[in-house]
Amino acid sequence: MKIGFIGLGIMGSRMAANLQGAGHELVVYNRTQGKADALVENGATRAATPEEVAGQCRLVFTMLSTPEAVEEVALGQDGFLRALPGNSLWVDCSTVNPSFSKKMAWHAKKMGQRFLDAPVSGSLMPAEKGQLIFLVGGDGADLEQVRELMDVMGKAVVHVGDHGQGAGMKMVNNMILGQAMAAFAEALRLGTSLGISEEMLCDTLLSGPAAAPFLKLKQPKLLSRNFSPEFPLEWLHKDLHLASITAYEQNVALPSLQTTKELYALAKQQGLGEEDMSAIYRALLPDQAK
Amino acid sequence: MKIGFIGLGIMGSRMAANLQGAGHELVVYNRTQGKADALVENGATRAATPEEVAGQCRLVFTMLSTPEAVEEVALGQDGFLRALPGNSLWVDCSTVNPSFSKKMAWHAKKMGQRFLDAPVSGSLMPAEKGQLIFLVGGDGADLEQVRELMDVMGKAVVHVGDHGQGAGMKMVNNMILGQAMAAFAEALRLGTSLGISEEMLCDTLLSGPAAAPFLKLKQPKLLSRNFSPEFPLEWLHKDLHLASITAYEQNVALPSLQTTKELYALAKQQGLGEEDMSAIYRALLPDQAK
Amino acid sequence: MKIGFIGLGIMGSRMAANLQGAGHELVVYNRTQGKADALVENGATRAATPEEVAGQCRLVFTMLSTPEAVEEVALGQDGFLRALPGNSLWVDCSTVNPSFSKKMAWHAKKMGQRFLDAPVSGSLMPAEKGQLIFLVGGDGADLEQVRELMDVMGKAVVHVGDHGQGAGMKMVNNMILGQAMAAFAEALRLGTSLGISEEMLCDTLLSGPAAAPFLKLKQPKLLSRNFSPEFPLEWLHKDLHLASITAYEQNVALPSLQTTKELYALAKQQGLGEEDMSAIYRALLPDQAK
Amino acid sequence: MKIGFIGLGIMGSRMAANLQGAGHELVVYNRTQGKADALVENGATRAATPEEVAGQCRLVFTMLSTPEAVEEVALGQDGFLRALPGNSLWVDCSTVNPSFSKKMAWHAKKMGQRFLDAPVSGSLMPAEKGQLIFLVGGDGADLEQVRELMDVMGKAVVHVGDHGQGAGMKMVNNMILGQAMAAFAEALRLGTSLGISEEMLCDTLLSGPAAAPFLKLKQPKLLSRNFSPEFPLEWLHKDLHLASITAYEQNVALPSLQTTKELYALAKQQGLGEEDMSAIYRALLPDQAK
Repeated sequence: MKIGFIGLGIMGSRMAANLQGAGHELVVYNRTQGKADALVENGATRAATPEEVAGQCRLVFTMLSTPEAVEEVALGQDGFLRALPGNSLWVDCSTVNPSFSKKMAWHAKKMGQRFLDAPVSGSLMPAEKGQLIFLVGGDGADLEQVRELMDVMGKAVVHVGDHGQGAGMKMVNNMILGQAMAAFAEALRLGTSLGISEEMLCDTLLSGPAAAPFLKLKQPKLLSRNFSPEFPLEWLHKDLHLASITAYEQNVALPSLQTTKELYALAKQQGLGEEDMSAIYRALLPDQAK
Repeated sequence: MKIGFIGLGIMGSRMAANLQGAGHELVVYNRTQGKADALVENGATRAATPEEVAGQCRLVFTMLSTPEAVEEVALGQDGFLRALPGNSLWVDCSTVNPSFSKKMAWHAKKMGQRFLDAPVSGSLMPAEKGQLIFLVGGDGADLEQVRELMDVMGKAVVHVGDHGQGAGMKMVNNMILGQAMAAFAEALRLGTSLGISEEMLCDTLLSGPAAAPFLKLKQPKLLSRNFSPEFPLEWLHKDLHLASITAYEQNVALPSLQTTKELYALAKQQGLGEEDMSAIYRALLPDQAK
Repeated sequence: MKIGFIGLGIMGSRMAANLQGAGHELVVYNRTQGKADALVENGATRAATPEEVAGQCRLVFTMLSTPEAVEEVALGQDGFLRALPGNSLWVDCSTVNPSFSKKMAWHAKKMGQRFLDAPVSGSLMPAEKGQLIFLVGGDGADLEQVRELMDVMGKAVVHVGDHGQGAGMKMVNNMILGQAMAAFAEALRLGTSLGISEEMLCDTLLSGPAAAPFLKLKQPKLLSRNFSPEFPLEWLHKDLHLASITAYEQNVALPSLQTTKELYALAKQQGLGEEDMSAIYRALLPDQAK
Repeated sequence: MKIGFIGLGIMGSRMAANLQGAGHELVVYNRTQGKADALVENGATRAATPEEVAGQCRLVFTMLSTPEAVEEVALGQDGFLRALPGNSLWVDCSTVNPSFSKKMAWHAKKMGQRFLDAPVSGSLMPAEKGQLIFLVGGDGADLEQVRELMDVMGKAVVHVGDHGQGAGMKMVNNMILGQAMAAFAEALRLGTSLGISEEMLCDTLLSGPAAAPFLKLKQPKLLSRNFSPEFPLEWLHKDLHLASITAYEQNVALPSLQTTKELYALAKQQGLGEEDMSAIYRALLPDQAK
């Protein structure tokens, strides 16, 4: 049975390639069609619309950048969800907000389909190497159906809980990611203002227990001012925005998150949205040091 | 030659004990005299004032809680600095702001003494086990004079740079520490509001690259709501306050820091100042869940 | 011709009563039916659903608390919009976000209807006294059709611009409202901590040019700690949340707004959502002074 | 008897001129001597040092930009305080923090002198026109001695309370001033992003009750992008910084203040410190609109 894969950006293209590499037949769709070319050359079937994917599969993965994009491919004019055979399984790996995932689960159920929210932890390199971590919300039996495929694309699967809780776990993970990055950028900013070199600051802070391990991967970008995107700043900003909306829905106050989110908004406004999230450091620098 | 040690609180008492354990003779002073008893029983000489310490040593360590306290023992009415023999060495291990350290270095020089700012990274347990990291600002030759003693109290020595830069490194380290703690508390708060358990959140987030390693040590406190102080919240708040003042002096904007600092201020205002810094989580909880 | 009025809460009930007092025949609907009783006793026709309103009018006012509530009465199962005679006019006085107003304008147009976003500035007392200010987005000719009715309910009409810009003006007005209130509460908090009385602070600050005029109306609430709602805190929080979402949509960074919003979130979390917005002061007080 | 006046900047020069205009003989000192020329030409005596002022007066006004500057002229090497005849009166009109004023009161008393903290509300134009408001902390009898002179320089005198409380009132006044300005700038930013013109926004918002009256004076600066300083942004930032320090001393949490303060810090970092405080708007604009 073929597997549908919709959304072939930085992440999706690598995940789909890993499935293909493990011998699975894919039906692929991407709004910008060229991004499907490599997979198609290797044997994947190209679908002209999301709906066409649904005609050939009973299992569909989606990996898109925003809730709006997910809703469009699933429920829009050419959406796949109503076109799937009954009791099919839709696995949404996009990073979206929990209430959106719950809404998708509700739509799927109403149409006689099954749903998992299964966002992944890890960016470009882990996606390429099949080292992602799947954070899954939904029914355990549904998860078992795709666990083997997740093992192809990732190194671990966490069954967080019910629908929306996979999305929830991903969201809080990106909250601490974004805040660690911003805090480190502010520490560099203050430290260098005191005459301590960026190298000394990175070497000392990153070997201590107060720094998140992922920050080591950002050190070369920070020192070289080459912020080629591994995880684009505007994606992180979107995730923090979704966390902010979720906090409102849940009646929860998160002051630190909000200010950090706004720091990324300032960076985005300065034109840094498509650079790596670590470009938040650039946004903090005075003009002459950027 | 005896070594002076002033300030025998949570940290100082362990550091002094390690020096004593390595065979060094100490002259000790603490404002609350009882805190010196154990050291005195083991052979240390008790001084009635900081000045009295100066009469018996050419090397003095200080480990106090605020810049004001350091200034008082060094330069106050019974201060030790003017009473030291010429060309003595004062090593201040307190966590203070860089401009204060520079001022102390200036006073020391004016009085013909030498000075190192040498705050330590690590809290109660590392202090007890001699596993601190010294972050040193000042002259390299002065550092060499006390490196052996630092090796007794710690596991590493980083010569950051000039006077004030040891203090600066400590300050920025505690900035990322405080922000990682607050961000994690906010993540727990949002995650549990979505019905994910604290255990699931801790297990998942703390095994990933977005969480600072020290947070694992806080997990038991967070889960048990037993916030017995390892690093009191009000000390961390003080450090963030000093960072805020330093940012003002250096004409640097640090939005995330400021909001996080204020979150700790809210916690302190709620009476959580003497609990562990991880009690910031309690401050975020609604009343019934505290 | 009868006028439809949907949403008879604190504001809507007063606005409808003023229309009725000026001799206009109303068809009214409110989810909680009892809130329509007084108007019905005075001659208004009660509709059982929003759709029923549409059967008797070519002009409908809505005054509801959230975008979701507006969408439900307009486009939901018993929504009025598709049931209206062609080329009717819908005037939405609710405080909603600009992109939502634009979406409603789009839906109205698609169904052959006309739309104005016309939120009002002013709370309970101005609503009762017919002293509201209408901030209108949409076509000038449509506005002229209802200007006379607005003059009954209000003292001024501002034609801000196109669809969504009435909503936009209201939103930015409530931004400065919410921030002035929070800033004043913080000023009271700091001032009283210095031993200055609340009366002295209010008398001095409120007579100066730095305080927004509306704050004078809040002085009795602040001094008496009787925060009976004139403008409920949770409504203001909702408005700041909508501003936050709009800022995201517009790629605009608003750091001060975000933190102030979160202060109201903290207050709401403490159970102050249904009190007046000025209860933000209570949220800042230590427990014993609340 | 001559009156001493130290500090002849934007504010002090106008205040001193008004005293002179009312027939009082002045002894004046300013670090940059040229600033005293106009007063000296009109009959004032020039002092070469603060100490020289003390030799000719029993009443000294100071109007300086920072606590450090006040401390220097009062207690520094050539300070006036110890040189004054016993039981003289020092009136400090500078905007400083309350704990600093209390410290100055303590020094004055120790030296047998009397002290009032008497910062003024109002900037350049009110200073010139003798329309300042004096916010006074200290003894009522001392205030009576200078009330007549204050009436020459101002239009109102508020005896707030004890030493430091005049300074406290000024500080909280500038808190709400700075937050109203920042909130208005953010409102303009969001409103214009929605296509509403700056004129429409100013006209509508500034005629409503949510806008502080002083904002009307800023409208021409905002619209023309000519931010010539009436109240320099860096002075406001300093005042917010002093409020932040005071909040720390008083164990008070002020989240909104802190973030707003940091917004001014960002503006200062962008080189806007010497422009008017309303230049905070420029800091929020994207590059092309500045």
